[in-house]
Amino acid sequence: MPAPSQLLSRRDVEFLLYDWLDVAGLTARKRFAEHSRETFDAVLDLCRDIAAERFATHNRRNDVEEPRFADGRAVVHEEVGPALDAVAAAGFLGAAMDAEVGGLQLPQVVQTACAAHFAAANVGTWAYAFLTIGNANLLTAHGSTEQVDRFVRPMLEGRFHGTMCLSEPQAGSSLADITTRAEPRGDGTHRLFGNKMWISGGDHELGENIVHLVLAKVPGGPPGVKGISLFVVPKFLLDADGEVGERNDVALAGLNHKMGYRGTTNALLNFGEGAHTPGGEAGAVGYLVGQENQGLAAMFHMMNEARVGVGTGAAALGYTGYLKSLEYARTRAQGRPVAGKDPAQPQVPLVEHADVRRMLLAQKSYVEGALALVLYCGRLLDEQRTAESDAERARAGLLLEVLTPIAKSWPSQWCLAANDLAIQVHGGYGYTREYDVEQHYRDNRLNPIHEGTHGIQGIDLLGRKTAMAGGAALAALAELLSATAARARAAGGEAAELGAALDGSLGRLLEVTAALHTEPDPTVRLANASLYLEAAGHVVVAWVWLEQFLTAGDGEDDLRAGKRAAARYFFRYELPRTGPQLDLLAALDRTTTDLDPAWL
Amino acid sequence: MPAPSQLLSRRDVEFLLYDWLDVAGLTARKRFAEHSRETFDAVLDLCRDIAAERFATHNRRNDVEEPRFADGRAVVHEEVGPALDAVAAAGFLGAAMDAEVGGLQLPQVVQTACAAHFAAANVGTWAYAFLTIGNANLLTAHGSTEQVDRFVRPMLEGRFHGTMCLSEPQAGSSLADITTRAEPRGDGTHRLFGNKMWISGGDHELGENIVHLVLAKVPGGPPGVKGISLFVVPKFLLDADGEVGERNDVALAGLNHKMGYRGTTNALLNFGEGAHTPGGEAGAVGYLVGQENQGLAAMFHMMNEARVGVGTGAAALGYTGYLKSLEYARTRAQGRPVAGKDPAQPQVPLVEHADVRRMLLAQKSYVEGALALVLYCGRLLDEQRTAESDAERARAGLLLEVLTPIAKSWPSQWCLAANDLAIQVHGGYGYTREYDVEQHYRDNRLNPIHEGTHGIQGIDLLGRKTAMAGGAALAALAELLSATAARARAAGGEAAELGAALDGSLGRLLEVTAALHTEPDPTVRLANASLYLEAAGHVVVAWVWLEQFLTAGDGEDDLRAGKRAAARYFFRYELPRTGPQLDLLAALDRTTTDLDPAWL
Repeated sequence: MPAPSQLLSRRDVEFLLYDWLDVAGLTARKRFAEHSRETFDAVLDLCRDIAAERFATHNRRNDVEEPRFADGRAVVHEEVGPALDAVAAAGFLGAAMDAEVGGLQLPQVVQTACAAHFAAANVGTWAYAFLTIGNANLLTAHGSTEQVDRFVRPMLEGRFHGTMCLSEPQAGSSLADITTRAEPRGDGTHRLFGNKMWISGGDHELGENIVHLVLAKVPGGPPGVKGISLFVVPKFLLDADGEVGERNDVALAGLNHKMGYRGTTNALLNFGEGAHTPGGEAGAVGYLVGQENQGLAAMFHMMNEARVGVGTGAAALGYTGYLKSLEYARTRAQGRPVAGKDPAQPQVPLVEHADVRRMLLAQKSYVEGALALVLYCGRLLDEQRTAESDAERARAGLLLEVLTPIAKSWPSQWCLAANDLAIQVHGGYGYTREYDVEQHYRDNRLNPIHEGTHGIQGIDLLGRKTAMAGGAALAALAELLSATAARARAAGGEAAELGAALDGSLGRLLEVTAALHTEPDPTVRLANASLYLEAAGHVVVAWVWLEQFLTAGDGEDDLRAGKRAAARYFFRYELPRTGPQLDLLAALDRTTTDLDPAWL
Repeated sequence: MPAPSQLLSRRDVEFLLYDWLDVAGLTARKRFAEHSRETFDAVLDLCRDIAAERFATHNRRNDVEEPRFADGRAVVHEEVGPALDAVAAAGFLGAAMDAEVGGLQLPQVVQTACAAHFAAANVGTWAYAFLTIGNANLLTAHGSTEQVDRFVRPMLEGRFHGTMCLSEPQAGSSLADITTRAEPRGDGTHRLFGNKMWISGGDHELGENIVHLVLAKVPGGPPGVKGISLFVVPKFLLDADGEVGERNDVALAGLNHKMGYRGTTNALLNFGEGAHTPGGEAGAVGYLVGQENQGLAAMFHMMNEARVGVGTGAAALGYTGYLKSLEYARTRAQGRPVAGKDPAQPQVPLVEHADVRRMLLAQKSYVEGALALVLYCGRLLDEQRTAESDAERARAGLLLEVLTPIAKSWPSQWCLAANDLAIQVHGGYGYTREYDVEQHYRDNRLNPIHEGTHGIQGIDLLGRKTAMAGGAALAALAELLSATAARARAAGGEAAELGAALDGSLGRLLEVTAALHTEPDPTVRLANASLYLEAAGHVVVAWVWLEQFLTAGDGEDDLRAGKRAAARYFFRYELPRTGPQLDLLAALDRTTTDLDPAWL
């Protein structure tokens, strides 16, 4: 069982929150006026304790003893419930939500930091809470007052849990093709019929009820995504007092058995197939959320939050793997310096070898970069919500739009790469189930898939986000990066070198983006959107590292020297990867579009 | 259970063996005079059948029902033994060995092709045979006639199995630090005392006996690797007639439980700890192989073969994953073309999407490139053994030296990347244990670790192989690649473009190599040896693809058009990655060497 210090680095979290993001400064704003740095620290300490004492303790057992399908029920490990109860009891489910619905009204950036601790400790258990929080946020934003009272409040209390039900067996990435139908009953309710697939937390008995948010089509609506509506479909119906009553017709059809992330049930759910007949009638009872046919837009509220959340989870898994491999590299003696291999001398710790240092620096640059990125997104959400001017709030919203696909995909790709390196640092030991890192690697492999695959995020970034609002989101991002580069150039020395490198890569990215946007054929324009996503991600994370470099200043402590070293690593080893990617994009390469599939 | 056509592509194997490597032409040589293309084809067909019918059938069960430690014994899945018996019965264990020791005297390149089929079908089961073959080859080359008669012949018959015992708990990559000691008894035998770790196939009851090849130190010898000797230590001693008799003091202390590759037992073995007392005396009975203190050189005979074998296994796992994801992409309908998303139209197969094609082409370029590379190494071994002139044989030997670290590492890195893409093409389904690709990914993750990690291979290539024989090995490689580039330039058209690109990358590689070799400080020179290995690997595989491009010519069939498309992909998407890597190497970057580990 790892110590709290092996989940995330406390000094790094404090550096990012306070030195870089000035989170303490948020307490000057009305929304956060009840808080102080002391309350933030107390919250983070409590998170660390719960993560270490309730989550990390059963991380491996959650993997080995994965949820079972028994008598139509999903049985999860007995330690999952108490861990989630501890999160609820501490108020973390509503950490960033309004006090009036039962939240703590903490800044989102603090909640993100909390989430990272839980995910680092046990992502399989944390996912239940993560989904409940996203569900509650969506319903609070788009649901009726009655829906908030009946479903959100019990979720924040930890009595109910939440899910999001989008995919179906024949419709994963292609939501236009969902076929679950919702028939209006004329009494304000609908009855749902269909099958949902890949539903995380889709069934279990951890609380009194499960609040499913379900995408479905009302017959007669427009085809494709324009005909999608959103419904609350509770596992158990509520009586007039909000007490759990009759079973709704949502039935567990089976569980998927995954390579990793095994602690989270992943369910196939049948809606309205007759396992139950609530009120004696066929169909699962659902309550429309918001307007008919506007379901996808509402669900994107949750999806966008979930995407940054996926990035947070990926960062957390990468981060704990890094710390564990660092500990291993410091304590495991193996081999001798290449200059002077005297077998009479004792072996040296792994960390003395240049290649091991490279693997550690790479991990550090990925995981601290990813954590900084998702915290920055949390900070943007706080800006969007509480900044003084309309313009500042709008700018934060635009930045969040353009950064969301990157905050989802970059950590998913590179913190998985970090876990791969964590295994490699451990050598053969890392490949065994005696060490944690192999599980982190398996767990993290989910992240490039769920909540929109890597390919989907690439199309979102290049096809939509960089073009939205007349290019305003991209312009806001460019301005943000340029401003930092300018500060760095003004600072002189190594900062100026890094600033110039960022300017160069950003300039090339913008040039290539403009060239792509002038390509009339969308097939060609988007053919390499995944590479565009990767290149843009590396440029953004170079900015994240330059920000940290500047924040570290010339501080001589290990933390600040380490920030400078990791920034240096990122600019020397990582940012140059974008050169060939952007050249390929600029060439509007048609290798894939011209391919005859018979040649494969 | 996959069809044989989902293991490796028959038409590709034939293209590589006959069109590219002219393996049929080998039958003109005395060693292979008994063979013909027909016998090669018959051998390959038999391999395919055994792989599909005996190996693939229990690949998943080998994973789920991994070997158990029970009563001091390792119990493997019941289908492993019959599969290995089928391999032995077909004579494949001695496929490339001399007829006089019981081999089939086939070309090594044909044996490599056979091995790839078995590994693609079930790498966990195949590993037992793979180790036995390597063991038998080593003993045949370095053992006495008596050792060959008593141990090699029964191995080729499938009655005995073989292992290699190098690592110890405190000495993995650092063989200088092994502490197992071998005390001479004065009667020509030694008694061994020590612990060996990570021993694949280290214990089981698949045959009558296990022949361990064990590195140990004779007391009083030189320190470090210069004091290492090699011993045969059978699990059961043999009587004068070669029949299995008394149990030797080799005891199974435990099994490692791995993330993948689970079908192969991975054992901790105790030698001479008193579990048995053969002849009433302490110590495990061992027989010196070759000369005292020359053990490491002899073991490298097996290690080099094993390294190419690891590359072959990695290629095979990547290859079958590619074929399975291709099949999935052709049959699974999801989404619509980005130009014209009409929800009234049916969904299109995944293979219609540019990003999926990119993932398939990337896999194709990795797995067919890797298979071609390891077959080429097999062909070099045949050249080394049978080429007409001393000069040709020496040249083949040099090429094999310099290519071995690449043939080990490049497939291990990129065919694992291929398996990652195979999962991604499958979407969520690929992350479940209902599909094969997640297991291939877990299995393949071992390959960058065992038989010398990625880091060790990098140091071998940059520190030793490129400098050996006054640079003759590197020069032979450069000449090989240049000659192909020149042919391509002479061919004009697209071939000339690719030839020019290869020339450019090769020139840069050689320039950077020369610069590195002039750096006096080995710590700095070798600091980025892993990146050197990666860059050199991509240059070599670009050559492999150019060779295939030229071999395909302007043939209009799908196979040849596909070879051209994959070569195009590799030159456009992959080879440019080497630019920033080589620039970093040229800069003799000191980011890692100057790092204070306290900053991590």
